[in-house]
Amino acid sequence: MTKNKLRKKPTILITNDDSYSASGLRKLIKLMRPLGHIVVVASDQVMSGMGHAITIKTPLRMKQVADEPDYEEYVCNGTPVDCVKLGTQVVLHAKPDLLVSGINHGSNASINVIYSGTMAAVLEACIDGIPAVGYSLLDYNLDADFDHVDDFVVKIAQKVLAEGLPEGVCLNVNLPAMSDNKIKGVKVCRQSHARWVEEFDSRQDPRGGKYHWLTGKFENDDLAEDTDQHALENNYVSVVPVHFDMTAYKALVEIESWNL
Amino acid sequence: MTKNKLRKKPTILITNDDSYSASGLRKLIKLMRPLGHIVVVASDQVMSGMGHAITIKTPLRMKQVADEPDYEEYVCNGTPVDCVKLGTQVVLHAKPDLLVSGINHGSNASINVIYSGTMAAVLEACIDGIPAVGYSLLDYNLDADFDHVDDFVVKIAQKVLAEGLPEGVCLNVNLPAMSDNKIKGVKVCRQSHARWVEEFDSRQDPRGGKYHWLTGKFENDDLAEDTDQHALENNYVSVVPVHFDMTAYKALVEIESWNL
Repeated sequence: MTKNKLRKKPTILITNDDSYSASGLRKLIKLMRPLGHIVVVASDQVMSGMGHAITIKTPLRMKQVADEPDYEEYVCNGTPVDCVKLGTQVVLHAKPDLLVSGINHGSNASINVIYSGTMAAVLEACIDGIPAVGYSLLDYNLDADFDHVDDFVVKIAQKVLAEGLPEGVCLNVNLPAMSDNKIKGVKVCRQSHARWVEEFDSRQDPRGGKYHWLTGKFENDDLAEDTDQHALENNYVSVVPVHFDMTAYKALVEIESWNL
Repeated sequence: MTKNKLRKKPTILITNDDSYSASGLRKLIKLMRPLGHIVVVASDQVMSGMGHAITIKTPLRMKQVADEPDYEEYVCNGTPVDCVKLGTQVVLHAKPDLLVSGINHGSNASINVIYSGTMAAVLEACIDGIPAVGYSLLDYNLDADFDHVDDFVVKIAQKVLAEGLPEGVCLNVNLPAMSDNKIKGVKVCRQSHARWVEEFDSRQDPRGGKYHWLTGKFENDDLAEDTDQHALENNYVSVVPVHFDMTAYKALVEIESWNL
């Protein structure tokens, strides 16, 4: 358990994967500003679906776009993971007290955690020992309404600032979309075992060349009640503790028995 | 445990993240050809460090470059994860019996599994219920010598074809670089807890603009003997069973106790 010293002004690094102009990022900045010294590093492009990509073939560029008391904002050409690296190494030259990423426009529950740029930024911070939380709203609309989740977003960030997180653990928070029903509360749960079933939309360009758009539908066969999908379907906020150790410990004995 | 039916000719899908021309891919194709009907889908560009990125902003294009008895090869503009999706959905219209990815030029042991395009392809297949193995050689050289690992690569693929893998589990295989010392054998192990410490190489372009190259050094503080790093440092092949459930189960109780 890494307890953060409760200083007057914690430093909070903020990023996302929907680019610097996304309303989800603007909302998150607004909610975090009262909590500390804010440093935003976000991409100039939409980086959805970038997973844990890093930029190694092209140079990274970054420019400062805001410099106010307790508020710095930078825009760069990198992925969400690059944003975390630039934020800690080039801007802060130190670890922030908290990294928050999002608020993503669309779910990062279940298997989406694997594809998500929002959660990749969170994992990257976690690898570096920085307490980190990713927030995603179950609404892909660019004009999504975030006001109904304000209290949950702030409360979770405050809790992590106060308590820290277990070593090697970060949080994947998903928030129900605005609806007529009030959010019932928060459930701490596991990642549901679902998957995307791809359907390529294959077309022909004006010159006769074939091309394919990746589409797909989400299929969740995991009907247990301790999952993030179950919590969200029942109008709870889901909080999944996530780690970066991908070892399937339960399979070690079986694979060892192969005597390779 | 998904046991594959032992048919005369299993279908083996092959991809990588170093592009279609990489010698590691050519070696893997050569080793797999005697084992079944081979379908290769590889990228036309180097996709190292792409993590689990998918292509959703631009259309995917793919062309067939080889059509021989029991051998088909396709080149596309996608990421390693896209290659798996195109291979199963557009080329095969079915699940292959095995997905192999690599042989990567460079280590994917320890935390590298998170950044690796090679292993992202393997995880993608695993999510789809396809037995899958990623191979990486601890030599970044494009002309790396792979001949000393032939037997290990083939034996592991044959074993997975014969036995299948536990549900939701794939294999991350790392192979020592060629040296004067003979490889001692195979160790089934866990992912070591290491990380990359970034160092940006910041420069100025001819017009005075600042840019940053991402560099870093690998730091392994995990000195236990049951890790992939330990196996590799002692000249063993490391085999880590990997899964895509990123829930930190051990942290569930603690986070629950926060009563969010």
